[in-house]
Amino acid sequence: MIIIRYGEIGLKRKLRRKFENLLINNIKNTLKNQGFKVKISTEWGRIYIHSSDESIARISAGVFGVTSTSVAIETSTEIEDIKNKAVEIGERLIGSGKSFAVRARRTGKHDFTSMDVQRIVGAELKKKTGSKVNLSAPDVKIYIEVRDNRSFIYTSFIRGFGGLPVGSQERVLSIVNDGKSILSSWYALRRGCEIDLLISGDYNEFREILFPWAGYRDIEVIKSSGDLKKLLNDAFELDYRGVYCSASFEEINSLISDSLLRNRKMPVFFPLMPFNGGYIEEKIKIVRSYFKTKSRIGGT
Amino acid sequence: MIIIRYGEIGLKRKLRRKFENLLINNIKNTLKNQGFKVKISTEWGRIYIHSSDESIARISAGVFGVTSTSVAIETSTEIEDIKNKAVEIGERLIGSGKSFAVRARRTGKHDFTSMDVQRIVGAELKKKTGSKVNLSAPDVKIYIEVRDNRSFIYTSFIRGFGGLPVGSQERVLSIVNDGKSILSSWYALRRGCEIDLLISGDYNEFREILFPWAGYRDIEVIKSSGDLKKLLNDAFELDYRGVYCSASFEEINSLISDSLLRNRKMPVFFPLMPFNGGYIEEKIKIVRSYFKTKSRIGGT
Repeated sequence: MIIIRYGEIGLKRKLRRKFENLLINNIKNTLKNQGFKVKISTEWGRIYIHSSDESIARISAGVFGVTSTSVAIETSTEIEDIKNKAVEIGERLIGSGKSFAVRARRTGKHDFTSMDVQRIVGAELKKKTGSKVNLSAPDVKIYIEVRDNRSFIYTSFIRGFGGLPVGSQERVLSIVNDGKSILSSWYALRRGCEIDLLISGDYNEFREILFPWAGYRDIEVIKSSGDLKKLLNDAFELDYRGVYCSASFEEINSLISDSLLRNRKMPVFFPLMPFNGGYIEEKIKIVRSYFKTKSRIGGT
Repeated sequence: MIIIRYGEIGLKRKLRRKFENLLINNIKNTLKNQGFKVKISTEWGRIYIHSSDESIARISAGVFGVTSTSVAIETSTEIEDIKNKAVEIGERLIGSGKSFAVRARRTGKHDFTSMDVQRIVGAELKKKTGSKVNLSAPDVKIYIEVRDNRSFIYTSFIRGFGGLPVGSQERVLSIVNDGKSILSSWYALRRGCEIDLLISGDYNEFREILFPWAGYRDIEVIKSSGDLKKLLNDAFELDYRGVYCSASFEEINSLISDSLLRNRKMPVFFPLMPFNGGYIEEKIKIVRSYFKTKSRIGGT
């Protein structure tokens, strides 16, 4: 089973339901576009995928709104079952000389506490492997979650990118005029917006790279010929709800002195403003390579 | 001597001169406000402070526009002098078992190359200390810069924050309505803008914390009573060249649906948009504690 965790979104109950449905839809479609068909189920604050495929867990972690995923083994809430499964998993990972820790959580009614689980599983693992417990910096961590009538055991987290599910916000226009634009577009998607791209120059590949990040949505491409100022003017005429731009804080200064940012009625966002070049390069690598896409974009 | 390095700013010659003068002024005044009086001199692409005080180097690294500083020993361009000074410094740092590397640069006319310097100093240090050279990951690094008729030897860099000198850009209004606002204001200063603060609630201390980051400029405080939306409306009426706001990308979504960001003629910047909470907390700590200010703000 793959456990999918998503952010606390602090929304009213009705909006929360909408958000969750959108997120599930985006996960399903992103996986489908990568060639995976899965069964998904939900529970309060959790999404489960019926699979133990590590690459499905990784792709799911790339869907905006997801904070982390884990591949877990499911078992009953009998303490014997939990112990046996956890020890089986632990034995495989705890090689000679490796330390370990057992971390248990519990919700629902059971005749043991989470401390009991930690103690019982820890003692058995120690006996079976001869390894030491190290609570502060263990080599191997065994996580056990007991929830009502099922238990999950896992040993690692795949970190997601947070954000909001694509489609939970308005559609915006993202200006693509340099290599950094792939990252400003990514931030627009991460904010939950659908995007269209206003492209100048040779950046058509960006559509395909961004497509998996967009959940299942297609991304429209509009052409422009010109520099950043021309592109901004074109964007203002298209009247989207917002414009995304990769300009750094030095470039913004010249846009301000040209009054360009004063002559329009829509907000322009510069998500890369606070960053230095090195950080931007690292992030772009992630955006480009996270999905080794087999996407079926544009029917090809 | 303290060496101050600043960013490649890609500006025309005349603007570059203005930028440099502003930077020197900001360094001088920031140091003065921290209780230090210094002598500053310049050379092509470099600023020097006539001091060997580590805390002056650290404060200077906090002036926007500065990329790094180093406390250096100055000597002549005689290879004997360079060798003796470098070995003297090296001997103090290279304890038992520590590896080292010598990194030399040279500009101007001399009868030796930078490779010669590395070889001669390295050999002597090896002989005197018995330590090993390790070029890829040395414990101690000895940097030697030979420039025309003077040489500088140093062993560490204090990293600056880059950006543009405060005052090189227009004056903007920064909205202060939560703990994060100190960071959005900081980013406005880092972009080279002067700032005034539009404050709602109990954040008057922010003025004093931000003051040293502003170079020598005073920061005006305007009061507002109200939530983020009221603050934004107040800001629009004040008609600055730009508005800075700490809203996260989730908060921005509600501002967009209220059309608030469409009904004004000035750009609104959200520099914290791309960040998660953890990163923001770390940065705020730096902004709050970098200058343990003894500033003479407001004549007190």
